[in-house]
Amino acid sequence: MSRGRKTGRRPGDPEVTRQAILQAAREVFGESGFERATIREIGVRADVDPALVHHHFGTKHSLFVAAHRLPVDPAQAIDGLANLPREELAPQVVRLYLSTFGMPGSPALSLLRAAATNEAAARMLREFIGEALLEKAPDLVPFPDARRRVVLLVSHLIGVLFGRVVLGLPELTEMEADELVVLLTPMVRRYLDDPDLTV
Amino acid sequence: MSRGRKTGRRPGDPEVTRQAILQAAREVFGESGFERATIREIGVRADVDPALVHHHFGTKHSLFVAAHRLPVDPAQAIDGLANLPREELAPQVVRLYLSTFGMPGSPALSLLRAAATNEAAARMLREFIGEALLEKAPDLVPFPDARRRVVLLVSHLIGVLFGRVVLGLPELTEMEADELVVLLTPMVRRYLDDPDLTV
Repeated sequence: MSRGRKTGRRPGDPEVTRQAILQAAREVFGESGFERATIREIGVRADVDPALVHHHFGTKHSLFVAAHRLPVDPAQAIDGLANLPREELAPQVVRLYLSTFGMPGSPALSLLRAAATNEAAARMLREFIGEALLEKAPDLVPFPDARRRVVLLVSHLIGVLFGRVVLGLPELTEMEADELVVLLTPMVRRYLDDPDLTV
Repeated sequence: MSRGRKTGRRPGDPEVTRQAILQAAREVFGESGFERATIREIGVRADVDPALVHHHFGTKHSLFVAAHRLPVDPAQAIDGLANLPREELAPQVVRLYLSTFGMPGSPALSLLRAAATNEAAARMLREFIGEALLEKAPDLVPFPDARRRVVLLVSHLIGVLFGRVVLGLPELTEMEADELVVLLTPMVRRYLDDPDLTV
């Protein structure tokens, strides 16, 4: 983002520090996964006091979102979704998803692409999904199997994005986002609200 | 498959010829995509008469299936599915899908993984899906938007396999295949049989 502005900045400059922390975070998350990575280790790698990492980015979770330039923080997004009128929830999930992964070069999609061919990247993403998304599943889904329901609906949406953006299947690329929202809403609603998933 | 048996075989040996054709096919499909690749070009690359390629593998489509060691030929599988009693169709689609992509090192999954990071591989797979699977969509789905319905249901299943095999999300890996079949059947049935996808 600020690559072009880096020239001329001096050590001690907050923006230089921020960028050093973000770079260190990407490295440490990539090597250790999300669960085992620590703010301390990221601070050491960036050669800054871990307290400064907290000061700039808050939790490990927010740091992951910033380091990978995700357009939304899943945990915050879920808080917003949980406050919607129930009938608006499913279409809004689809819209959020399309805006997060919808472009070929989107950072969220880059994480998925990396996971497809690299086990360390897959583990990092799996752990982050577990922490950022699935811990909050019961806030959205009023059933004991909330985590599994959210995993299934997110998987279906990942598949559609894979078909649309990665494979470029014309049946999906030719659809406007709004049309996809209409077609996918009933599927999402089923996982969110249908008491029995087996019929 | 026959790597261990290759030693000692002489040029002119049918198995040597077969392997040369398969290797040439992988190269040419990878470089040119599925649509532009020709049996003639593959024959030239393998240094054999194109008639011999036809003799060993039949159509370009069957050659692709053999070259990528896909466990099923999608076109043949659809012929089989189309003859099932209608209520058995949806669960059988899920089972077929799980057996095709279900293992981490399965050849079909390798094609998906390659497509995630390589545009030529994505194009090859997109073109093959269009030819092998979607041309036959009207045989399975009695609606004018048959191709789009099959794309959506296949995408959803790809996503579940991505979550289960690539990301290794515990909510999906902990399920037995049979349990997944039961959970996914209603979703598949909806795309196959429900007249209105928007409700």
